[in-house]
Amino acid sequence: MLPAGSVIGILGGGQLGRMLSVAAARLGYRTHVYEPAANPPAGHVADRVTTASYEDAAALAAFAASVDVITYEFENIPAAALDLVEAARPIHPNRRALAISQDRILEKDFLTGLGLKTAPYAAVETRVDLAEALDRIGAPAILKTTRLGYDGKGQARIMAPADADAAFAAMMGAPSVLEGFIDFSREVSVIAARGPSGEVAAYDPGENVHEGGILRTTTVPARLTPSERTDAVLLAAKILNALDYVGVMGVELFVTSAGLVVNEIAPRVHNSGHWTQNGCAVDQFEQHIRAVIGWPLGDGSRHANVVMENLIGDDIDRIPALAREANTAIHLYGKAEARPGRKMGHVNRIAAKG
Amino acid sequence: MLPAGSVIGILGGGQLGRMLSVAAARLGYRTHVYEPAANPPAGHVADRVTTASYEDAAALAAFAASVDVITYEFENIPAAALDLVEAARPIHPNRRALAISQDRILEKDFLTGLGLKTAPYAAVETRVDLAEALDRIGAPAILKTTRLGYDGKGQARIMAPADADAAFAAMMGAPSVLEGFIDFSREVSVIAARGPSGEVAAYDPGENVHEGGILRTTTVPARLTPSERTDAVLLAAKILNALDYVGVMGVELFVTSAGLVVNEIAPRVHNSGHWTQNGCAVDQFEQHIRAVIGWPLGDGSRHANVVMENLIGDDIDRIPALAREANTAIHLYGKAEARPGRKMGHVNRIAAKG
Repeated sequence: MLPAGSVIGILGGGQLGRMLSVAAARLGYRTHVYEPAANPPAGHVADRVTTASYEDAAALAAFAASVDVITYEFENIPAAALDLVEAARPIHPNRRALAISQDRILEKDFLTGLGLKTAPYAAVETRVDLAEALDRIGAPAILKTTRLGYDGKGQARIMAPADADAAFAAMMGAPSVLEGFIDFSREVSVIAARGPSGEVAAYDPGENVHEGGILRTTTVPARLTPSERTDAVLLAAKILNALDYVGVMGVELFVTSAGLVVNEIAPRVHNSGHWTQNGCAVDQFEQHIRAVIGWPLGDGSRHANVVMENLIGDDIDRIPALAREANTAIHLYGKAEARPGRKMGHVNRIAAKG
Repeated sequence: MLPAGSVIGILGGGQLGRMLSVAAARLGYRTHVYEPAANPPAGHVADRVTTASYEDAAALAAFAASVDVITYEFENIPAAALDLVEAARPIHPNRRALAISQDRILEKDFLTGLGLKTAPYAAVETRVDLAEALDRIGAPAILKTTRLGYDGKGQARIMAPADADAAFAAMMGAPSVLEGFIDFSREVSVIAARGPSGEVAAYDPGENVHEGGILRTTTVPARLTPSERTDAVLLAAKILNALDYVGVMGVELFVTSAGLVVNEIAPRVHNSGHWTQNGCAVDQFEQHIRAVIGWPLGDGSRHANVVMENLIGDDIDRIPALAREANTAIHLYGKAEARPGRKMGHVNRIAAKG
């Protein structure tokens, strides 16, 4: 266990870094947030903030020297920046988890290598690659950049072969992956954690609804059979153990008649785990901090039913009404400007456990 | 409603200011903490901290100018400092509530004036006053300084008239009040809130156990009859309305065979309300912030049974064991040094609502 008062460095100052900072404070630790953008949401609650780019070697070195351990709130951190800070301080989750989650092809190779199901996929670098991949996988399918996609960005649907040219052009020359469509009844996610000693804890799976590629709601309990529930937790544990992982991971799954199919993994706290803030004694943010600082993992058992709803863009205008709702916990991120598609906050609606 | 991103000034940077800061951030607001001591617990999570004494007029003026509204985490703020900041910005709760709670005689005069029961009491300035008061009230009794007492400090018990000299000497010349002992079965407290429009909300009363003058545990639900529960909430509402109060108040009550007797009121969030962090959608810290910024009061209905235990002094050494307990939420205050009697944190143990 890191001594009380130690400093946790967090790469990235968005809402995840913000809620990680609050969780660290609750356990008596401090945070130092590194973020290129001015006035980051995490800055309002972190003990210290460095505003500098990921290319600024001096700032990165000073940041690393000022902290005892490093974690991150997003997976698209430049490798050179990671090389630099990792030379000075331990990083959790580790680089392998990050590398795999940064690249859709590495990720799917890793998952299928573990014997887990994914969508059929094929790497696409040229228009010829795409034609061959479409022949093999068939339409409908979805073309995604291999790296740097999130919230539906960097994706193009191919409903029929005639859409292939437009989809290929939309990738703007970036290496891509064609993924076959999965016929799924619902999407769920498992938020799981692993500590340095190898202990694993998983939260009850949540059921996700997306709109326009952005998570809209997560509901616990998810509609799963008992065996699906068990499978979901076991496969998450398999992933964490295979990576010798330390921290919280979000694992998105499709529920199909042939079993659970892994959509993607995120080596960090996850939007679909925000319900834990009002449904568990120890939420995903504290669980991640516990793993990173070497505390025992906390009790993540669920004591209530929760529906988490993201507040996106103009949803923020609903706050006066939401503030009057019963059984509703509001979590806002302190972002000054509400832009379309921007996550401004979320609410957790709580009901007795059923 | 204050616009999102507005700044709430908090006088006092201890654990209550810390937890108020986190609650403000959760609603998208910022805090600026004013605290004379260096490295205050609230400083780790506040957006901004001023380290200056309550005699520093320039620092107080700059603090007031930088915030949109002012609240406080303790009641012993020097009046001159309050005069200064109140000239610039609104303060909630108001000065009358503060004045009454700062002075045990004003407080009891106010409460009895509302028709509420208190312990028998008499003002004591001289040794003769004390003799007369003891004649009237009888022993056992307790002599307390009129102002500046907390956590059992500034108090002396008088079990028999022979103890009077020592008790009088212990007051060191400060104006005091003699209070008769109350024969009570238990102590409970009500955490209640009132918004600027006059709406009142009260949390379920908690049952308190003190050790050495310091709160040890609060348990919800308290062992109260239905009529006692109703009386507790109604009398708290009566106090808040009489003061035209805005914010959260802690009202400590003795349960006696003749009904509820008010022990004392605190014009702020209260240690006996910490259980709300893990028992309610909206906790006492957020409820206080909501009142201060003019949001509607939140839903404070209780969704779990909770036992809050304070971690005092060396209790902090129990953290490795507590971190492994099921259903236990840990809240630490980031204090560097554990001194005897110092509140270092608390835990909330959660169980299904019974």
